[in-house]
Amino acid sequence: MRHFTSVHDFSSIGDALSKAKYVKENPFADHELGKNKTLLLVFFNSSLRTRLSTQKAGLNLGMNVIVLDINQGAWKLETERGVVMDGDKSEHILEAIPVMGSYCDIIGVRSFARFENKADDYGEVILNQFIKYSGRPVFSMEAATGHPLQSFADLITIEEYKTKARPKVVMSWAPHPKALPQAVPNSFADWMNCTDYEFVITHPKGYELDSKFVRNAVVEYDQDKALAGADFVYAKNWAAFNDENYGKVLSKDMSWTITSEKMALTNKAYFMHCLPVRRNMIVSDDVIESERSLVIPEAANRVVSAQTVLKEILLSL
Amino acid sequence: MRHFTSVHDFSSIGDALSKAKYVKENPFADHELGKNKTLLLVFFNSSLRTRLSTQKAGLNLGMNVIVLDINQGAWKLETERGVVMDGDKSEHILEAIPVMGSYCDIIGVRSFARFENKADDYGEVILNQFIKYSGRPVFSMEAATGHPLQSFADLITIEEYKTKARPKVVMSWAPHPKALPQAVPNSFADWMNCTDYEFVITHPKGYELDSKFVRNAVVEYDQDKALAGADFVYAKNWAAFNDENYGKVLSKDMSWTITSEKMALTNKAYFMHCLPVRRNMIVSDDVIESERSLVIPEAANRVVSAQTVLKEILLSL
Amino acid sequence: MRHFTSVHDFSSIGDALSKAKYVKENPFADHELGKNKTLLLVFFNSSLRTRLSTQKAGLNLGMNVIVLDINQGAWKLETERGVVMDGDKSEHILEAIPVMGSYCDIIGVRSFARFENKADDYGEVILNQFIKYSGRPVFSMEAATGHPLQSFADLITIEEYKTKARPKVVMSWAPHPKALPQAVPNSFADWMNCTDYEFVITHPKGYELDSKFVRNAVVEYDQDKALAGADFVYAKNWAAFNDENYGKVLSKDMSWTITSEKMALTNKAYFMHCLPVRRNMIVSDDVIESERSLVIPEAANRVVSAQTVLKEILLSL
Repeated sequence: MRHFTSVHDFSSIGDALSKAKYVKENPFADHELGKNKTLLLVFFNSSLRTRLSTQKAGLNLGMNVIVLDINQGAWKLETERGVVMDGDKSEHILEAIPVMGSYCDIIGVRSFARFENKADDYGEVILNQFIKYSGRPVFSMEAATGHPLQSFADLITIEEYKTKARPKVVMSWAPHPKALPQAVPNSFADWMNCTDYEFVITHPKGYELDSKFVRNAVVEYDQDKALAGADFVYAKNWAAFNDENYGKVLSKDMSWTITSEKMALTNKAYFMHCLPVRRNMIVSDDVIESERSLVIPEAANRVVSAQTVLKEILLSL
Repeated sequence: MRHFTSVHDFSSIGDALSKAKYVKENPFADHELGKNKTLLLVFFNSSLRTRLSTQKAGLNLGMNVIVLDINQGAWKLETERGVVMDGDKSEHILEAIPVMGSYCDIIGVRSFARFENKADDYGEVILNQFIKYSGRPVFSMEAATGHPLQSFADLITIEEYKTKARPKVVMSWAPHPKALPQAVPNSFADWMNCTDYEFVITHPKGYELDSKFVRNAVVEYDQDKALAGADFVYAKNWAAFNDENYGKVLSKDMSWTITSEKMALTNKAYFMHCLPVRRNMIVSDDVIESERSLVIPEAANRVVSAQTVLKEILLSL
Repeated sequence: MRHFTSVHDFSSIGDALSKAKYVKENPFADHELGKNKTLLLVFFNSSLRTRLSTQKAGLNLGMNVIVLDINQGAWKLETERGVVMDGDKSEHILEAIPVMGSYCDIIGVRSFARFENKADDYGEVILNQFIKYSGRPVFSMEAATGHPLQSFADLITIEEYKTKARPKVVMSWAPHPKALPQAVPNSFADWMNCTDYEFVITHPKGYELDSKFVRNAVVEYDQDKALAGADFVYAKNWAAFNDENYGKVLSKDMSWTITSEKMALTNKAYFMHCLPVRRNMIVSDDVIESERSLVIPEAANRVVSAQTVLKEILLSL
């Protein structure tokens, strides 16, 4: 594996899962693999799980880990070419990226969608500049349109908790006060579509996701119908994707919040969310605190997904 | 030792001191003990000594150390249950804590008193949530009502410098421009009360501390009388503890500043302070710069106290 | 080597270069040298290259590395003596420095000129306080008047790319929107004056640098004349040094920007800059992106210069 930006960088879902299983059972077995290798984690945005789990993954592999928060102790970065840089940005990303590459062996990048320009977001301009200019293997720690390490951890978790070969997995939109990127639902759909699960997406009209990720998934606009018989409920908010309303909040309809009443419609489903989650917007206190809530095991598996990917990249250096 | 939140987590003062002595004399002897163990240091508040000395302690023990500044690169945390999270806080501490626990083996927490609600502060709500929900051993890096690693370092320092079996130790309130928590004086009293030193507390009326920590210590409202014959003067500001004035500054009386004139009343006492210290408010330049000032040895012993506690926790994993 | 604040801490340029060559060719050969040694990097100012390359240098030597951003997670520091500290600064640098020293074996300090008081800046008050009070070897990660690790990396780069024994190196002032310190041009001149290169400085009148660093270098006020026949063009902005205008921007003359037209006057010169650089102020997009641009190799050599210096200090502990 050279770069990791989506599920398609693994040869198959089965391959990804078997490698993850080995890493989870033998977390320190490859401690020599990362010796004298430096992992640089670059954050353009806030992070708790990604920040901690990816550091832990690198340390488990014996790597040196350096964390860099852009705009906190570093210089503000210009991203446009051709600009006369007479403002508050002291450095151009076209210099900063190869410089970062010269100080490490692998780079992780977190850079959210900005909702300023759909083409820039869906063109993954920042992530692709790192791939193009850093001279190093690059992996996504959540980019504008995908969050594959999260979805990989979600998949590992479903595999651990499923009680039938082909569980019904329902991804449901839920309300949120702010406009959020589609990275998590995009990636979750992308990964689910590589499994043989029954996969259903439910959201209010207007919240349709990019068909590139939705593919053949069933889209059901009636949340109650979608939840019927579900084995796993994956809740998430996202802002509109369509061109007319790109990045806008179209609804804060609290009838979409995942409550005990909604969960009663399911097949005693497990509740899932990538976190951070807004309680009593996305999900009620009682559902997220219930025994069927998998939010902590999902988060814990972020070390496994990150370590599996880092190991594959280390092996290819 | 499972958790460390006060002196009472050691079986005895003698036990704590003998373990500290070993650690100080053999700082790298237990380097294998922390192998493949991750220490997570969570800061809700600013820190210099604690940040550096606890990192050093973990590294001396061979641990991987990860520092997390909440609200700096992470998400703002909601701490109340039942809230509809539609404001600026993206994550609930009830998710964040077990998530943090899933990425490490031991957690250190720094969370000061907020002076918003005395019951919350003295109930140590944040620290206790980490103990209850993280699934990991937790140690205090200064909580709302105590700073035991500081007091432990203070005790080690007194033992190193005392010239009689039962020195007179005087803890004196001193003026400060802002309202400060009682964590340091509470813990210092708690630890001193476990020794057989002569221990005296002096402060203006209205600054009485929690009797839980003061216990049988002599409280003398006349600072000059208290200082007479002192072998160690431990200066510190704190805000009022009593219910009517909880968290308030009642006095900025500069006659309580520790000056050369005040020190002349003592038995050539050593001057102590936990730092950071406001010069010419708490203590004059000449006293803190004198040969009898122990502020730097105290700070240096923070590595020893932290490493001793971490070692005990590692041994019990 | 005890401290490192300038080129003069090496016995000779030849000695510095031969040690750097060894380090570059054998980056992990001295991994045992730093075992159980702690490197503390203290930043009073922003940093990208210095932050990453110095961490990498320490890790390559097997050191434990701790990064401290003053005013980000630590306490604000008072630097004047005799002040009644009743404002927003919680700690005095006279306590903070020996405390930092007590937690590490070597300290790196970044502290820029403030342009408030020329005597303070050129007296290197902050850096010298670290040398005087920390009790540890101290090295400059850019101080008020010098940036020797940058100039050392620049020299290594010139040695790697020069095609004649005595290349012509031209350091040219270029426009910038803000007032910048003279640290980089001072150090560059200081290092170049220790070589046998042909060294020329060009800038508008009023931008004369300290004669202590300029020494016998040729100063040519006509940029075009200076560039004629240059083998290396080193661009940099700085604010005025003279007493009347200390720290002021006297010119933003865009005719001094290094463009393709300017480079055409040279002997197919390499373009150099320490970064971060303001594109289309200091240098045009096409020049910095050209094959003759050395800005990335210069930055990459920052690991080599830092590691060479750290190794020398470790050897002298």
